[in-house]
Amino acid sequence: MARLGTFSTPHGLINTPVFMPVGTVGAVKTMMPSELDSLGAEIILGNTYHLYLRPGDKIIKKIGGLEKFTTWNKPMLTDSGGFQVFSLSGVKERGLKQKPKPRTITEKGVNFYSHLDGSKHFISPEKSIEIQENLGADIIMSFDQVPPANAPKSEVSAATERTHRWLKRCIKSKKRHDQALFPIVQGGQFKDLREKSADLVSSLNLPGNAIGGVSVGERKEKIYEVTKWCTEILPKNKPRYLMGIGYPEDICAVVKLGVDMFDCVLPTRLARHGNVWIKSLSKDATKLDGLSHSYKQVDILKAKNTSSGRIDNECGCPTCEGGFSRIYLNHLLKEQEPLGIHLLTIHNLYFTFNLVREIRKSIRENKF
Amino acid sequence: MARLGTFSTPHGLINTPVFMPVGTVGAVKTMMPSELDSLGAEIILGNTYHLYLRPGDKIIKKIGGLEKFTTWNKPMLTDSGGFQVFSLSGVKERGLKQKPKPRTITEKGVNFYSHLDGSKHFISPEKSIEIQENLGADIIMSFDQVPPANAPKSEVSAATERTHRWLKRCIKSKKRHDQALFPIVQGGQFKDLREKSADLVSSLNLPGNAIGGVSVGERKEKIYEVTKWCTEILPKNKPRYLMGIGYPEDICAVVKLGVDMFDCVLPTRLARHGNVWIKSLSKDATKLDGLSHSYKQVDILKAKNTSSGRIDNECGCPTCEGGFSRIYLNHLLKEQEPLGIHLLTIHNLYFTFNLVREIRKSIRENKF
Repeated sequence: MARLGTFSTPHGLINTPVFMPVGTVGAVKTMMPSELDSLGAEIILGNTYHLYLRPGDKIIKKIGGLEKFTTWNKPMLTDSGGFQVFSLSGVKERGLKQKPKPRTITEKGVNFYSHLDGSKHFISPEKSIEIQENLGADIIMSFDQVPPANAPKSEVSAATERTHRWLKRCIKSKKRHDQALFPIVQGGQFKDLREKSADLVSSLNLPGNAIGGVSVGERKEKIYEVTKWCTEILPKNKPRYLMGIGYPEDICAVVKLGVDMFDCVLPTRLARHGNVWIKSLSKDATKLDGLSHSYKQVDILKAKNTSSGRIDNECGCPTCEGGFSRIYLNHLLKEQEPLGIHLLTIHNLYFTFNLVREIRKSIRENKF
Repeated sequence: MARLGTFSTPHGLINTPVFMPVGTVGAVKTMMPSELDSLGAEIILGNTYHLYLRPGDKIIKKIGGLEKFTTWNKPMLTDSGGFQVFSLSGVKERGLKQKPKPRTITEKGVNFYSHLDGSKHFISPEKSIEIQENLGADIIMSFDQVPPANAPKSEVSAATERTHRWLKRCIKSKKRHDQALFPIVQGGQFKDLREKSADLVSSLNLPGNAIGGVSVGERKEKIYEVTKWCTEILPKNKPRYLMGIGYPEDICAVVKLGVDMFDCVLPTRLARHGNVWIKSLSKDATKLDGLSHSYKQVDILKAKNTSSGRIDNECGCPTCEGGFSRIYLNHLLKEQEPLGIHLLTIHNLYFTFNLVREIRKSIRENKF
């Protein structure tokens, strides 16, 4: 089911399969837009929840939209804020005196309290679309209700039904014609709910379709199984976006299942914790289904990694080609020098973009 | 007394007057070596005290020296560690349970306790040279005793005399012939002590000469006066290095007094606190003696600076030319996104290198 494709947006073409780095507050952590471009980024995510709270979607609209605001002149995608409203609101931010009250969900929408200052907010399907129209990304997402991991079937079913009703409200309230709205398949780990949701989503004939709620506390095999239920139904001629995936082996596995787009904070988050991905042929390395090599995750902060060699002598990223040694990177991380995290982020993003380039080549050559 | 010059080192020529950014632990904060190069950096400082404690000078020697370690292939200078031994040791580091005991100074050298882990260390003139020979910078500094600001004349006199004795021990213990040792003039705010020290330093005929201890809690006029006492004596055919200067107006003022080299953490430190320097013609701007324009320090975190304009529309730095707006930079700083500090650091370093380029041009055209 793996395939190659292109998706056209007002800010240019996206070649799929495509990995989308996450620029939560309007920047992929530590990275210049020019650096992302030269590493091969084709599209970047922004988080509606964060950008709505700060600096505010109206300010970004006034500047001319998210691409103008961030100076990233290529395609962007914003999520609906749904996931963060459920996972982040009510979380206590450092410096905030009182823990904000938890969110309340009604058919109308979600009342929540900012993790920044505890202030009260309300996001509905209509409000999410309004914010995303102000932010102005090329691809916007429908506002969905994500049930907690391991919720009983009755709860997941109710949330999925509500997601469908909210999706119709999103479509109805959408005003801009230069943004592609992607609906999201929900249904937890239940085959009949997933199939019902995928059927409904497919029937709406929107420019692309997404699969949500699969990476919340599930085993890898379960993630792949749930993904397959959805990709077998979702239309072939539209891009399929699996949200929040993933590790290199996950990317290979879901491309095999017909997924075209995926986003993940791992390359940037792991870098902040001193970890890098490298190609490896050793026995304990993780296999990459469809490719000829395996890979390993290496902790640059560990003493055994303080050699004068590079992260990966075969790697073509600016960090490895620039001659930065593991011992120097280890030193920068220990000293909390921002350059250290930046250099590791560059390596991990390059690794991921390169992985996807290799997957594309392998598909093109019928070897995947 | 302003002049142009070149100073030859094993890693290339330095054109003077020259501003030297500070790479305390082996990196100019947030900056890639390639970025420093393209902004116009000709020489970078490393701090002996920090690099001796972590990762250790022996490790850096094993890698092939500081230039190899950091991938910066142009000239470097290390200080002697003297200033930090007096100012940093005994300072409590976050996470360290007990405040380290204060240093003790004898004729032999200085016993001090690491600000990182409280461990006991000893640095003498001989040890400072040994560490600096291991680090392997092109220019190394003599180990001096910096008296506290406002110390009585008797104390300053004793410290200056000891600095002279330590200087002779530095020269005697030096083994490498590919490093230029610069002696340091001390003497506090006392004209006769400064003149005596400058006379002694001049008589040693070393490749360059430095002036130390002038920026510790002194008024600007006093800094300039003390500098002039020294530059009038120090030989004309050797570079004169004024340590720890400074603000743009200080750079202009001391170049007029015959200073050729200066280092300062201000461009990088101010960036970390959201402040930038910009050219300005307004009345409240600070005059730059010898140049046709004035400048201002602007706080990007302040609400009135959240416009969609750039830091400085006339500026040619990658941050301003890249189209990053004040409001976006303000947002990144508030979000504590490392990219924000990085973009401000680039601007401030470019401003400072450009200031020095303008000073050189002005001297060349006999207008300074």
